[in-house]
Amino acid sequence: MVEKLTINTSGQGLVEFTHEVEQLTKLSGVSEGLCTLFICHTSASLTIQENADPSARHDLEGWLSRLVKENDPLYTHTSEGPDDMPAHIKAALTATSLSIPIINGRLVLGTWQGVFCWEHRHGGHHRTVAVHIS
Amino acid sequence: MVEKLTINTSGQGLVEFTHEVEQLTKLSGVSEGLCTLFICHTSASLTIQENADPSARHDLEGWLSRLVKENDPLYTHTSEGPDDMPAHIKAALTATSLSIPIINGRLVLGTWQGVFCWEHRHGGHHRTVAVHIS
Amino acid sequence: MVEKLTINTSGQGLVEFTHEVEQLTKLSGVSEGLCTLFICHTSASLTIQENADPSARHDLEGWLSRLVKENDPLYTHTSEGPDDMPAHIKAALTATSLSIPIINGRLVLGTWQGVFCWEHRHGGHHRTVAVHIS
Repeated sequence: MVEKLTINTSGQGLVEFTHEVEQLTKLSGVSEGLCTLFICHTSASLTIQENADPSARHDLEGWLSRLVKENDPLYTHTSEGPDDMPAHIKAALTATSLSIPIINGRLVLGTWQGVFCWEHRHGGHHRTVAVHIS
Repeated sequence: MVEKLTINTSGQGLVEFTHEVEQLTKLSGVSEGLCTLFICHTSASLTIQENADPSARHDLEGWLSRLVKENDPLYTHTSEGPDDMPAHIKAALTATSLSIPIINGRLVLGTWQGVFCWEHRHGGHHRTVAVHIS
Repeated sequence: MVEKLTINTSGQGLVEFTHEVEQLTKLSGVSEGLCTLFICHTSASLTIQENADPSARHDLEGWLSRLVKENDPLYTHTSEGPDDMPAHIKAALTATSLSIPIINGRLVLGTWQGVFCWEHRHGGHHRTVAVHIS
């Protein structure tokens, strides 16, 4: 089964969509298998992170934005705005695809693991994530 | 087939478990297929690195610890110790899942490639890695 | 199906091979499924990036080379040349494996997404990428 999810973002940051992936897994009827996520963009990415305490996400976003600065005078790819080149770099440093095994019809996520879409642009976007389950 | 491996770590650093993954691959009886690893934690991660010379691992660990510093005054997620927030960041920069094709019943790892669990906390932990082979 | 592709690089930088992966996907006859790429090296890696404007790739390469410097006096793994240890670090920060779902016999790549082999050594190499399609 391959389905496409749309994740709506509202500017830079992590948007959790664990529940949507769990629902697709249930729908697939697969008891033992693999769920693979792929984000169809180069200025947003995927990550699995702690979903209990929002401060961990906040610090993660802040740290990466301090590492990959906007307005670096050495950037030449600047026509799409100051947040575009940093977005490509952040996407390259994080994940474009992720695979999570399924046991007993459920993703084997650890207690504190959530699945997130990471928006790297300032503006909100409709992000497409393709989900393959088999 | 989905199996869970437990990797015992003894503080920050890379622990190789290539052999355990190769054994599961043999056990599965799969001749041509795919082996996918997923780590069920947000403060440890996976990586494939050179397994010949320990100095490469040592330098990799040191470099990442210098990049992602402890006690950054901008961290707000500090209640679980000074090594917790850096651990989440390091996990986001490396891999939560990895997939290795299988040919003739063997992982297609290159000559110098080993599979490692990367512990990012100071203390030792029992880390769970789910292995899907099909 | 598992096939091996050889990507010829000519020193540090991104080499696109989207077309080769699309051709293998067509050859496989798989209509709905998953294509997984794995690079059999620890000093080159994989990434999915914008393939429209070469300036984005140029900036990405430059940024990572400024982050992961050569001749860091703290490196101990130096016997294979000044570009070897940075190559291992860059590989660990980017992807060793990538999975792309297939719908209607085609990879679900976004409009601007291309598949790249990222050479991290100064010299050109023949890089092996194993491609699993099912």
